[in-house]
Amino acid sequence: MNEVTIQSPATVANLVCGFDVLGMALDAPFDTMQVRLLDEPIVVITSRDGFPLPADPAQNTAGAPLLAMIEELNSKIGFEVIIDKQIKPGSGIGSSAASAAGAVVAANHLLGNIFTKQDQVRFAMFGEKVASGVKHADNVAPCIYGGITLIRSIFPLDIIAIPSPLLYVTVVHPQIEVRTSDARQILRKEVLLKDAIRQWGNIAGLVAGFMKNDYDLIGRSLEDVIIEPVRSMLIPGFDEVKQKCKEAGALGGGISGSGPSIFMLSKDPATAHEVEKVMKAIYERIGLAYHTYVTSINPEGVKIVP
Amino acid sequence: MNEVTIQSPATVANLVCGFDVLGMALDAPFDTMQVRLLDEPIVVITSRDGFPLPADPAQNTAGAPLLAMIEELNSKIGFEVIIDKQIKPGSGIGSSAASAAGAVVAANHLLGNIFTKQDQVRFAMFGEKVASGVKHADNVAPCIYGGITLIRSIFPLDIIAIPSPLLYVTVVHPQIEVRTSDARQILRKEVLLKDAIRQWGNIAGLVAGFMKNDYDLIGRSLEDVIIEPVRSMLIPGFDEVKQKCKEAGALGGGISGSGPSIFMLSKDPATAHEVEKVMKAIYERIGLAYHTYVTSINPEGVKIVP
Repeated sequence: MNEVTIQSPATVANLVCGFDVLGMALDAPFDTMQVRLLDEPIVVITSRDGFPLPADPAQNTAGAPLLAMIEELNSKIGFEVIIDKQIKPGSGIGSSAASAAGAVVAANHLLGNIFTKQDQVRFAMFGEKVASGVKHADNVAPCIYGGITLIRSIFPLDIIAIPSPLLYVTVVHPQIEVRTSDARQILRKEVLLKDAIRQWGNIAGLVAGFMKNDYDLIGRSLEDVIIEPVRSMLIPGFDEVKQKCKEAGALGGGISGSGPSIFMLSKDPATAHEVEKVMKAIYERIGLAYHTYVTSINPEGVKIVP
Repeated sequence: MNEVTIQSPATVANLVCGFDVLGMALDAPFDTMQVRLLDEPIVVITSRDGFPLPADPAQNTAGAPLLAMIEELNSKIGFEVIIDKQIKPGSGIGSSAASAAGAVVAANHLLGNIFTKQDQVRFAMFGEKVASGVKHADNVAPCIYGGITLIRSIFPLDIIAIPSPLLYVTVVHPQIEVRTSDARQILRKEVLLKDAIRQWGNIAGLVAGFMKNDYDLIGRSLEDVIIEPVRSMLIPGFDEVKQKCKEAGALGGGISGSGPSIFMLSKDPATAHEVEKVMKAIYERIGLAYHTYVTSINPEGVKIVP
């Protein structure tokens, strides 16, 4: 076998109180990628989706991880990658991570699965470095592991799968641009100790809630007193979306990654669809173009298409 | 029944990375208390242990919670409390919490168990207010619930029991005085965001480690980059104790509450006893009086003596 097709899913980083350490894979949307083995150590990127992403593999989020892998393998193989991206760049649901993780999982599959999941995350982080200037794993880890993951530490890399009950996810992507680097710059370098304590109480509660299948505890713990008050100002309608979606039955939610997408978690599909109606009504009234997705947690991450 | 005897255990607050939100009950040491119903709304405190604690119930950590309970009940009952304290005041293993929680659980038992555990924690916090000036629950909650507890929030009170594997606990109490209020004052009011992120990665890892019975993950997560670097300077021998106990096989550990006691967690009793030897050797050499305890997690908390 020298060719494989994969589906690489969108992901929600941070999960409200887990800034930089938690992430969750979604069933939809996903990118489709074909990867072919080449017999020279190069990477060739072809895009079929019309997004103006760099074709230079060193500057491309799918290319950079493969170049790092080729360098580590030190052999004469290379990869051709054909990308059909459905996850909009800049939406805040892990578009760059899907390219990076998808390319790595596909390449590893073609090589006979020689790398651990942790190794694959390590390679995929080269793609995030290209995309945002920072090696972070809160999107690529859930994209590769599936489900919900905790990045306890980046150096050394320590990834923990967090079991969870069935959860339905409603995402709205208001069509405004929030650059990850801008969203990071507006954060203060210091935080109040009392706020940090509240935040670590919440993340501990969220992890316990997921592992105990305790929906109420999950809902109570979805509170962010540090990042959201600052970043939400960049997203028109944020406070109203959050409040009205909770009134419609959502457990809670917040900014997806660095935004502008907003996600809400629900116990059942009917509520998740009610939440979508609320989101649509708000952005119709505001008059801002938007996309919505109603989906669920993706338990397996990047999927090899048979 | 108008009299009951209870045993109220020592507790370890914070658990390294869970400052102000995590706590754990120990099998030993414990205070023994007798509580009797009175037919007038007063509280009488008698001490049988020789510790110079206030006899005025409003100033006593066992008395203040009972006065609060009497006020809420608004009836003509009161309590006589006889305390035989084995947990040294100021040791950092929840001496004031044991008095407060023990009194409340005993009184509730005599009243026919009319209060929930959460209510009992709420009353016991009046004792912590008397002891340290602050209503905190990271000792009284595990003392009442047993096991490991998370205080996700104090206002409103939200207590979550965290399941854990069997763990053995070695405690050394170097006989120096560290006042909780002093230990709190030396903390900075602001912390670096990057340190806070590392801390909430660790507490999430610790909770996941407890709930997955993953000893290695528990060990890796027992890291505190915020409080310990400051407070450990008040405890002679701290760095050496921590390092050598880990070399002797302990999973990890740190300051118990606000100190000066140091606790270490181990997978088995043999290691816990090895760790005790290491602690003893260090304080013998330093020439500081000390006590040690080798014990385990107490799954039930305050115990009614039949």
